[in-house]
Parts: sequence; structure tokens; C-alpha cells
Amino acid sequence: MESNAKLILVTNDDSVNAKGIQSLVKMASPLGRVVVVAPDKPQSGMGHAITINDPIRMNRVEMFGEVEAYATTGTPVDCVKLAIYEILGQKPDLVVSGINHGENSSTNVLYSGTMSAAIEGAMEGLPSIGFSLANYAHDADFMQYEPFVSKIIKHALTQGMPKHTCFNVNIPNLANDAIQGIKFCTQAHAFWADRFDRRIDQFGRPYFWLTGEFGEVNPTEDSDLHALAAGFISIVPTQFDLTNYAVYESCKSLNL
Amino acid sequence: MESNAKLILVTNDDSVNAKGIQSLVKMASPLGRVVVVAPDKPQSGMGHAITINDPIRMNRVEMFGEVEAYATTGTPVDCVKLAIYEILGQKPDLVVSGINHGENSSTNVLYSGTMSAAIEGAMEGLPSIGFSLANYAHDADFMQYEPFVSKIIKHALTQGMPKHTCFNVNIPNLANDAIQGIKFCTQAHAFWADRFDRRIDQFGRPYFWLTGEFGEVNPTEDSDLHALAAGFISIVPTQFDLTNYAVYESCKSLNL
Repeated sequence: MESNAKLILVTNDDSVNAKGIQSLVKMASPLGRVVVVAPDKPQSGMGHAITINDPIRMNRVEMFGEVEAYATTGTPVDCVKLAIYEILGQKPDLVVSGINHGENSSTNVLYSGTMSAAIEGAMEGLPSIGFSLANYAHDADFMQYEPFVSKIIKHALTQGMPKHTCFNVNIPNLANDAIQGIKFCTQAHAFWADRFDRRIDQFGRPYFWLTGEFGEVNPTEDSDLHALAAGFISIVPTQFDLTNYAVYESCKSLNL
Repeated sequence: MESNAKLILVTNDDSVNAKGIQSLVKMASPLGRVVVVAPDKPQSGMGHAITINDPIRMNRVEMFGEVEAYATTGTPVDCVKLAIYEILGQKPDLVVSGINHGENSSTNVLYSGTMSAAIEGAMEGLPSIGFSLANYAHDADFMQYEPFVSKIIKHALTQGMPKHTCFNVNIPNLANDAIQGIKFCTQAHAFWADRFDRRIDQFGRPYFWLTGEFGEVNPTEDSDLHALAAGFISIVPTQFDLTNYAVYESCKSLNL
């Protein structure tokens, strides 16, 4: 690797042991110097959690061959912070997170550790991309999507990205040659209709498992869910300013 | 309590044992029928995390006197979901979260379990408010702010709130009579300059504690940090659509 190679931080929320991150490392390695800092165990659904009340452990791991890699006890967001401030000693040129086992379209972006790592990268002012595949299988075939993932990463490395914005990339569960292309989208207005599976343990005490169904409330043609259903890879430019500017002015006239 | 009393769900991230939620329950109780569903242990910094890979336990607790209350092993977002789908059997008229020990202004909204509970309420289509006090002390005097908190809750109950928008309310660490008023604001563009405190355990192995300093990058007069510094209670109308519409159109012309 030449010394002016771009520095690419790879993380995820499914842990260093997931096939998705192993595939992403393979795809990113020809494009720059890759360093992996990722959780040592699954952290799906961790959102933007950080570890405040416990210390974090971090160990060098070897499963990525020649690629420098660390497994941490922290969350995906912790991993990005540790990478920048403890391991790399500099800001990377790009943060890529994933490839997630399962999609993170629509409001799932808020629950997703994979996307929160990318959002944390954006907060650090770095080009950042989260990748997710609409397939939860542990042995899903991620490598077939290399042409798309590689193209998106190369674009970010050469053309840059909008400041303080990351890309939320979702790949539909289709064979590579059935994918219709890449489409920029808005975050679909869709929600979980939650319910809990209530069970009784061996001591007669109840416990609860979160479950539910996902449904789009106001389907729009520009949404990520719509693009995925039509066979496209969706990209939502994603920011972290949660101010609802559409109502901000009218709020100012409230009598409070 | 008359039978047409408004149903108010109270939660937080500092746990049922925190003075902040005990004070909020006292403030909300005259305004409707209060039910508490909150974590059984501190969950600060949990962001929008949900519990996927573990079951959740939930127990009735008595520390709120006559007020129906449950402590759960889940995150603040889990608590909102459990309340709606397992405990209440209906959607509450209002979700209030807090009062947080410590402020959640600016980008802290993303890390905050208190605010994520309020955001989850907004995702459920409910009027939702997160309250935070810029004082981390376990014995902070929350009750002195009752006139402000009560006014904001009453307003939400009687006038409603913008759909799919919650309020991020931060109270400066000032005596009640030094507060200048209530001001609607935008989310300040401020970030943590993180660092880790690296220590060595008794076995010679390193561990890391997250620390850092918070600084505003582009101070603006309409930001929550500016209002707090000027002695106002800040309210940011907060949404969960992370699409960066400002760059969405230009992204569509990218060659991807």
C-alpha cells in the first residue's frame, strides 16, 4: 500500500465475527489502508448509545489477516470514538459501517448501531457511509454486491461528501444482476407496530421479547422503502440536526 | 382523579430511583393520571437503543406512592414501547421524560436516553416532551422549576403539539427566579472533543473511560446553547426524519 493511501475506518454493529464486516473489509481493502474497530459481540439495535458508566476494553484481533483490527466491548459509536482518539491518532478519510445483516431503511436508522456509527462519523466531520443488506442470514452472500459498494466508496473517497451528512445505503435482497441501480431517496415515514411476546420462565415470572411489524404510513415515490421495493439500492443523505424547522417559526409564537 | 383525566406516561433514563423522575411525577400528578414506566438502573447515554437479543423484565414498584409505576430492565425506548403495548393497553395523551440529571442540549439529543424516549413517543404519534436540568447532582433541586414544567405540560395537554415532533426542554442551572423565560430554539451545532482516559488494571491490562469537552462550532443566536447561556429555558422542536433535504436534490445528480 502506498504511503498516501486513503485511511478507511471500518466498523459495524454485528461484531467483528459477522460475515458482513468481513465482506466489507474485502471490498474496501483495494481502495485504501483499512483499519477495523468494531464491537466484540452483536450490538444490533444499540442506536446512538455510548458507554458512560463502564470502562471499555479493546483487543487486537487477527481474523482480518493483514488488516489491522480491534474488537472492543463498546458500542458502535464508542468504536468510532476509540478509533479516532485512541487508535488512529488522526481522523480517517472515510468511515464505513456494515455491511449490516438486515436493512436499516426508514426510521430504522434511529435504532441501528450500524447507522449510528456512520452518523457519529458525520458528527466528526468525516465522510461516512452505512451499508445494510435486506437479508438477516448469517451467511448471506454480500460479495456479489461488491461492484455497487466499491463504486459508492470510491465516489466518496474521490469526490467527497456533503459536510456533516452520511449516506444510509440499503441493498435489496436480490441477486446482483436483478438490482435496478442506485437511487437517492428520502427517509420513509414508516413505523413499527410493536408488540411484545410475553412468556413465563421456569419460576413462573413473566418476561417480554420485543417483536412487531413494520409498515409505511405515507408511501411516497421518493422514499427509501419505495426504491427498495422497486429493486433499487437506496441512499438517504442523513444528518444529525433534529430541529424541526418546518414548525420552528410557528412554535416561537406559542404563549410559553 | 376524574375518569376523563388525561393519561400521562412518565419515563426517564436515570432510573426510577432518580430524584429527577420523582420530581417530574410530583409535577405531573395534578395534571392527569400518571403511570410511570422507567428503567430499573441508570441508562444514561443509551440513545435510541432497544433490547433485541435479551428478554426484558418488568416489575411493579411502590416508590411513587399511589402512582402506578413499573421498573424495567429495558432501555428508555423499551420503556415507552412496553408502556404503550403491554401496560396501558392504549396510547397515553402525553409522554414526558426526565427530568434528566444533566443537560441534553445540542447534539447531546442523539446520545440521550431521556430524549430518545421522547422521540419514540413522537414516532408513536404522541405529544412528547423531554426535560433536562443542567445540573448533574443527584440531589439537585428540581421542584423549584415546577411553574415552568407545569406550564409546558399543561400547554401540550390543552393545545396539543406539532405531529411527530417532540420538545427538547433544557433548564439552565439557575435559581428559579433568575430564569429569564422560555425560548424556542434550534439545535446548536456543537460537538464533543472526545478523549479517553487510558488506565491500567491490576493485571496490567488497559481499559478506557470516555471523557471529553463540549464546544459550539458555529454559535448562533437562535441555538439552544445560546439561550441557556443567556438564562432561558430552551425548547427545540425535535423530529426523527434525518433526511438532509438541503443536499437531497444535489445528491440526485451524482453519477452513482
